[in-house]
Amino acid sequence: MGRVTTRVRRTRLDVGTGVRVERPDTVAVEEPLEVRVDGTSMTTTMRTPGDDFDLALGHLLTEGLLHAAGEVVTLMHCTDVDESGSPTFNVVDVTLRPGTVLQRPARERSEPMTSACGVCGSASIDAVRTASRYAVADDPLVLSPDVVAALPDALREQQPVFERTGGVHAAALATASGELLVVREDVGRHNAVDKVVGAAARERSLPLSGTVLVVSARASFEIVQKASVAGIPAVVAVGAPTSLAVELARESGITLMAFTRHPRFSVYARADRVTG
Amino acid sequence: MGRVTTRVRRTRLDVGTGVRVERPDTVAVEEPLEVRVDGTSMTTTMRTPGDDFDLALGHLLTEGLLHAAGEVVTLMHCTDVDESGSPTFNVVDVTLRPGTVLQRPARERSEPMTSACGVCGSASIDAVRTASRYAVADDPLVLSPDVVAALPDALREQQPVFERTGGVHAAALATASGELLVVREDVGRHNAVDKVVGAAARERSLPLSGTVLVVSARASFEIVQKASVAGIPAVVAVGAPTSLAVELARESGITLMAFTRHPRFSVYARADRVTG
Repeated sequence: MGRVTTRVRRTRLDVGTGVRVERPDTVAVEEPLEVRVDGTSMTTTMRTPGDDFDLALGHLLTEGLLHAAGEVVTLMHCTDVDESGSPTFNVVDVTLRPGTVLQRPARERSEPMTSACGVCGSASIDAVRTASRYAVADDPLVLSPDVVAALPDALREQQPVFERTGGVHAAALATASGELLVVREDVGRHNAVDKVVGAAARERSLPLSGTVLVVSARASFEIVQKASVAGIPAVVAVGAPTSLAVELARESGITLMAFTRHPRFSVYARADRVTG
Repeated sequence: MGRVTTRVRRTRLDVGTGVRVERPDTVAVEEPLEVRVDGTSMTTTMRTPGDDFDLALGHLLTEGLLHAAGEVVTLMHCTDVDESGSPTFNVVDVTLRPGTVLQRPARERSEPMTSACGVCGSASIDAVRTASRYAVADDPLVLSPDVVAALPDALREQQPVFERTGGVHAAALATASGELLVVREDVGRHNAVDKVVGAAARERSLPLSGTVLVVSARASFEIVQKASVAGIPAVVAVGAPTSLAVELARESGITLMAFTRHPRFSVYARADRVTG
């Protein structure tokens, strides 16, 4: 745990010069994390170790299973061990406050999931949508274009793992004035968002009103959905948006900005919040 | 189905010039696809419509549930409809040849999956690993560095959806001489790989010996695992590899190349196949 990068040997080739050298490289660590709630396995995700409690809590919150950090009594790493008997720290046990129930009924699935699978259980878009309990559309957030255009560079300055590996995504929660409240990196872009929401939810209650979710990657349906469920009224993506991300942002009243590279960006939904 | 891009209105801002224009943009379509086998829902993935049969077949093959296209009798779109009564083409029904059984026992899950979740069911790396039935390590493939370095540009020339949207990944299957046998695009990088394997498996039997899987994205554990299960002895990624991708490539004898940008690339496993 906390071992976010590792060194591996690689052979570097240049077909222009014909040079072939063997030397070490730093790569991002990817390992499975299983989240158990009161002993029941809820999910396993391939993630970069570190901030596992933020990830577990954030996942339960952004999937709408819990609504507040206070519903959790303890977060603990199981003492699972690898072949050599060393702890792997790859299981987080979540204990709920007595009386707390997960908000969505458990469903059965016929197949173990891989990240090849997106949203499961139904092909209806309505059915894959997790309704938000927050009126995100009513959030009085106002964003200056200068603040928006500067967010990706601000995020980029706080991506030490990307700096060393070029292999992880990042997410951040920012204020309307552009201050980054929390930044997290992960091999999985959804994990980075979950880590951010989990960290923020330990400091303040949901909804995360008045904040902006910044992602280093594209804006897909599920990124916007996680923002909606956490009560975040704006998403800034460095990459492209998908059709369903735009649709969900419009329906839920989230300001969706994409292709954000100083000095330009595009607003796909609720552009009225971007003024000045 | 087949509607891979759509037009949306957006507001484009430039904080340098202060120009704010409203104009249409083309974005990649993202919609859920549910795969049912003999009537049982197996998975739902957020994908770009089109090549749905390749995606369904490729998913079942790369997850190790089936071993040959011939085990499938029919692939059909269900006649599911949206609110307006129009068909959505978002469910594919797979009918197996009588006597064919899925190779992995069905497991139950307690939560519907999102793409926030990677591999599920166990936190043990061994347990998330789907064993390949092919001796990929023994594949006599030999690759010229010139061929490897040229593959990303060859792929890039066949990415019409990326060209229009900037928002999709691509994957291809190539020969040792650098010919692209099949190219597919998708909002999900795993889907792009599944589409490629599904398309290839309809033309020839697994293992896909002597071929190279090219991906526009990073090389994660699951991309290498899909190659392994499909019997593909080499993976070329444009982006970075993860620790577990390197580990799996070494264990399964797959030549793993990453950061492939002409004229340079790095080999993280089985560099002996890259000669000349």
